[in-house]
Amino acid sequence: MGHFRLKFTRLLVGLTLLLSGLAEAQTPQPAPDPEHAHLIEDLVAANHILADQQVLDAFGHVSVRHPSNPDHFLMSRSLAPALVTAADIVEYDLDGSAVGAPANFTHFLERFIHAEIYRKRPDINSVVHSHSPAVIPFGASKIELRPIYHMSAFLAPGVPTFEIREAAGGATNMLVSNATLGKALAETLGDKNVALMRGHGDVVVASTLPMAVFRAVYTETNARLQLQAKSLGGEVIFLDREEGEKAMKVLDQIHLRAWDLWKRKVAR
Amino acid sequence: MGHFRLKFTRLLVGLTLLLSGLAEAQTPQPAPDPEHAHLIEDLVAANHILADQQVLDAFGHVSVRHPSNPDHFLMSRSLAPALVTAADIVEYDLDGSAVGAPANFTHFLERFIHAEIYRKRPDINSVVHSHSPAVIPFGASKIELRPIYHMSAFLAPGVPTFEIREAAGGATNMLVSNATLGKALAETLGDKNVALMRGHGDVVVASTLPMAVFRAVYTETNARLQLQAKSLGGEVIFLDREEGEKAMKVLDQIHLRAWDLWKRKVAR
Amino acid sequence: MGHFRLKFTRLLVGLTLLLSGLAEAQTPQPAPDPEHAHLIEDLVAANHILADQQVLDAFGHVSVRHPSNPDHFLMSRSLAPALVTAADIVEYDLDGSAVGAPANFTHFLERFIHAEIYRKRPDINSVVHSHSPAVIPFGASKIELRPIYHMSAFLAPGVPTFEIREAAGGATNMLVSNATLGKALAETLGDKNVALMRGHGDVVVASTLPMAVFRAVYTETNARLQLQAKSLGGEVIFLDREEGEKAMKVLDQIHLRAWDLWKRKVAR
Amino acid sequence: MGHFRLKFTRLLVGLTLLLSGLAEAQTPQPAPDPEHAHLIEDLVAANHILADQQVLDAFGHVSVRHPSNPDHFLMSRSLAPALVTAADIVEYDLDGSAVGAPANFTHFLERFIHAEIYRKRPDINSVVHSHSPAVIPFGASKIELRPIYHMSAFLAPGVPTFEIREAAGGATNMLVSNATLGKALAETLGDKNVALMRGHGDVVVASTLPMAVFRAVYTETNARLQLQAKSLGGEVIFLDREEGEKAMKVLDQIHLRAWDLWKRKVAR
Repeated sequence: MGHFRLKFTRLLVGLTLLLSGLAEAQTPQPAPDPEHAHLIEDLVAANHILADQQVLDAFGHVSVRHPSNPDHFLMSRSLAPALVTAADIVEYDLDGSAVGAPANFTHFLERFIHAEIYRKRPDINSVVHSHSPAVIPFGASKIELRPIYHMSAFLAPGVPTFEIREAAGGATNMLVSNATLGKALAETLGDKNVALMRGHGDVVVASTLPMAVFRAVYTETNARLQLQAKSLGGEVIFLDREEGEKAMKVLDQIHLRAWDLWKRKVAR
Repeated sequence: MGHFRLKFTRLLVGLTLLLSGLAEAQTPQPAPDPEHAHLIEDLVAANHILADQQVLDAFGHVSVRHPSNPDHFLMSRSLAPALVTAADIVEYDLDGSAVGAPANFTHFLERFIHAEIYRKRPDINSVVHSHSPAVIPFGASKIELRPIYHMSAFLAPGVPTFEIREAAGGATNMLVSNATLGKALAETLGDKNVALMRGHGDVVVASTLPMAVFRAVYTETNARLQLQAKSLGGEVIFLDREEGEKAMKVLDQIHLRAWDLWKRKVAR
Repeated sequence: MGHFRLKFTRLLVGLTLLLSGLAEAQTPQPAPDPEHAHLIEDLVAANHILADQQVLDAFGHVSVRHPSNPDHFLMSRSLAPALVTAADIVEYDLDGSAVGAPANFTHFLERFIHAEIYRKRPDINSVVHSHSPAVIPFGASKIELRPIYHMSAFLAPGVPTFEIREAAGGATNMLVSNATLGKALAETLGDKNVALMRGHGDVVVASTLPMAVFRAVYTETNARLQLQAKSLGGEVIFLDREEGEKAMKVLDQIHLRAWDLWKRKVAR
Repeated sequence: MGHFRLKFTRLLVGLTLLLSGLAEAQTPQPAPDPEHAHLIEDLVAANHILADQQVLDAFGHVSVRHPSNPDHFLMSRSLAPALVTAADIVEYDLDGSAVGAPANFTHFLERFIHAEIYRKRPDINSVVHSHSPAVIPFGASKIELRPIYHMSAFLAPGVPTFEIREAAGGATNMLVSNATLGKALAETLGDKNVALMRGHGDVVVASTLPMAVFRAVYTETNARLQLQAKSLGGEVIFLDREEGEKAMKVLDQIHLRAWDLWKRKVAR
């Protein structure tokens, strides 16, 4: 009987998979503009890379500005990043509304983080929001995240912390789940590359998707190493502003070496 | 002599395996009520997830209240969680007695933890007991575990610590291995979601199995991040009570995203 | 040409493998006494487990007292533990001399650790010597390793530290590479279960092989958790002597659950 | 626009890959001197080992002095170490100029680190430059890296820190990207085995490739363990100069055990 029940369960699972397969095969998928195809492929890779590098877990998201319409951006529907496929990528406008997405898709509550940063920062074409673990303790305390080595030179201009209690005028559920809070976060970010969110996570931005991924990974690493440096008990010397500016130019040259390696790793 | 003991032990283990094999082959397995089949499948998954997420090692256990008989609960026989299959799930009553389990099964010494929490807390349908590593140092010191971000908002109501020395009136083997100690632990837990056990581990409860697993994973993560925040040396700002309440409602909405991801990971 | 060279290298490697295969096939291997076969299998498993659990890296060793001759013990020839097979197990007497080992075998410089502990401690049938990473900082400082939870109750009787500089009367190469130093280490260990070795590692003993492995793993874990507890900054409550004694009896009952799980893991 | 840049980048990458493919197919590869073949194979293994052991990530490099021409050395072209194959190994002279490398190869900006150390240190035949994570905090603070156990005895002669700001007379991009800075770093290293580079990483040297890899791995491990010892809060006893000298001789004898294990691991 237990055996029968098990077989029945298996049957049910099989049927579900079959039906979902048929649905996928028969629904006319919107044919992706050839211009987008590669970008979407990279966006899927970025999701997998950030999960593999342990910047994202089941939560968090990465987006890229729409290549031909700067007032739109591309991001996965609400889904664990490790599971994202090209079919899950949705186009959003800067009000956070999905454009032409399947009706059964649900959307990230915090897509306003992305929308409002794209609105305020025309120089930015990619945004990562994560609960990057080693960064959380910095967002929860008053200790500033600073560049301990050249790989995180992009922290040199400063890393502000977003206090949602101030932005909302009181206690919230901690989520940046509307345009007002999104604007406040974008305001806190200013012209910087990284902003922390107290009791929540951080946001990392760049002019390209691979650079946003690179910065997200090395923001996490820097947080871990800065904590260790602090624990050693001596004075810590960080990169100064000028060193940071100069080292950032090196990262422009070399960051694709990491992107290529990470992409290969998740492609296995 | 040591050798003789070893051989004897091996003989015993061999016999046990043989008998359990025979038992499995010959005892007509009690046909699980169709209502149970899915729940048992999820309970097996929960065991594997908690081992994979390193909340459980060879020890610890997760249970779920019986779906049709609230005075019973389901839990694995005494076995490393990573090895649990549907055939290892046993039904227990609130006195910790197994109902209809194969005679060769051994049972967790600490099933009274689960029994007494189910007795005292009708709102709770799932219990995890673990030696969650990063949590152990909090249970052994007087530093309170507090929610460093929204993912662990369920810590906001407070996290009491169970001192078995007080409950037992003296030194014990540290195990909650009878109803009296189980009741005392349930008393310490009160209406909270997590209680620490000094020199031992912790207990995490929720109204559903996936939520109990979610809370167990993020209790471990929070402990790790809170230690890091402490090591940074500045003041740490935790979620306050009101933020915690509001953020817990978000977790109700989104926790299955993690459950689905983790389940897929262990199904590979 | 480069191609030729590569092919030549491959040819050489192939020939070597072939010849070694033939050698293995044709040399009459000393037929292992049936009494030993299982024990040797377990000793090989112990090597693999301790490497997998990251107690051993390329260095360190685990031994077991000879089952029928208490004045002999079994241990791998000098080899990284992860690579040990049954054919690498050598029988040693208590002077550290190999009995009937192939002439081409080299032997661990520190086999005297094992020999002298077996000589001094008839109650002990298994010894692990490792550079267990989290334990090293305790051996290098004056902070005593103490049991933070019941899984490491075997630390409750106390954990002495061996200072080789005192034993040798001056600077050494840090190795316990002769009988005199082995005796001094056994003296430091006394009737305890674990002794640290300053600037080097530790030694863990038990009456059975699975228990020695269990203790070695949880000595490492305890060191990691005790450091974390210390970093939290409050007072830490360890198991007291009586709790330790009582909890050790529980470990006698349950440690094979871990052994079985770990063995399966390395058997994959 | 961002999209255009992205497409352009992709085009460039594509072209590069195509050209390198053609180059590989059509350029008659310089036949490596038989003396080199094994060394090149080991150098490829060293790249993979150091990535696997997490000393190198997408960045950093390992080199070996040319076996027949001491004024040349061998190192990968600019590439993530995990991806290096024999075809990527380039011969350089001590001015950092590539000898007979395919035209499409790009070269590490910091090959001058290697060149200038080989020039100054005839006793050295292998150099590792990395951003070894646990070492970074030591380079950024004034806490000296010291040998916590015999495995890192090679630190006993002292570990100087290179301050590029002093060498360059002001702010730089942190890279040792010319002969002048390379010479200054070699000067700082002096006759030691390891030098830290503030805000950047470290350099590890040895008379053989396997020993350089061994030292790089245990420099990372020592940094991690020394931080833990510091966090314990008591006095830490390091190996003294004489113990260090004696233990280094042991490492000469045993380090190939680690090399062999690590090589097998990456060969899987």
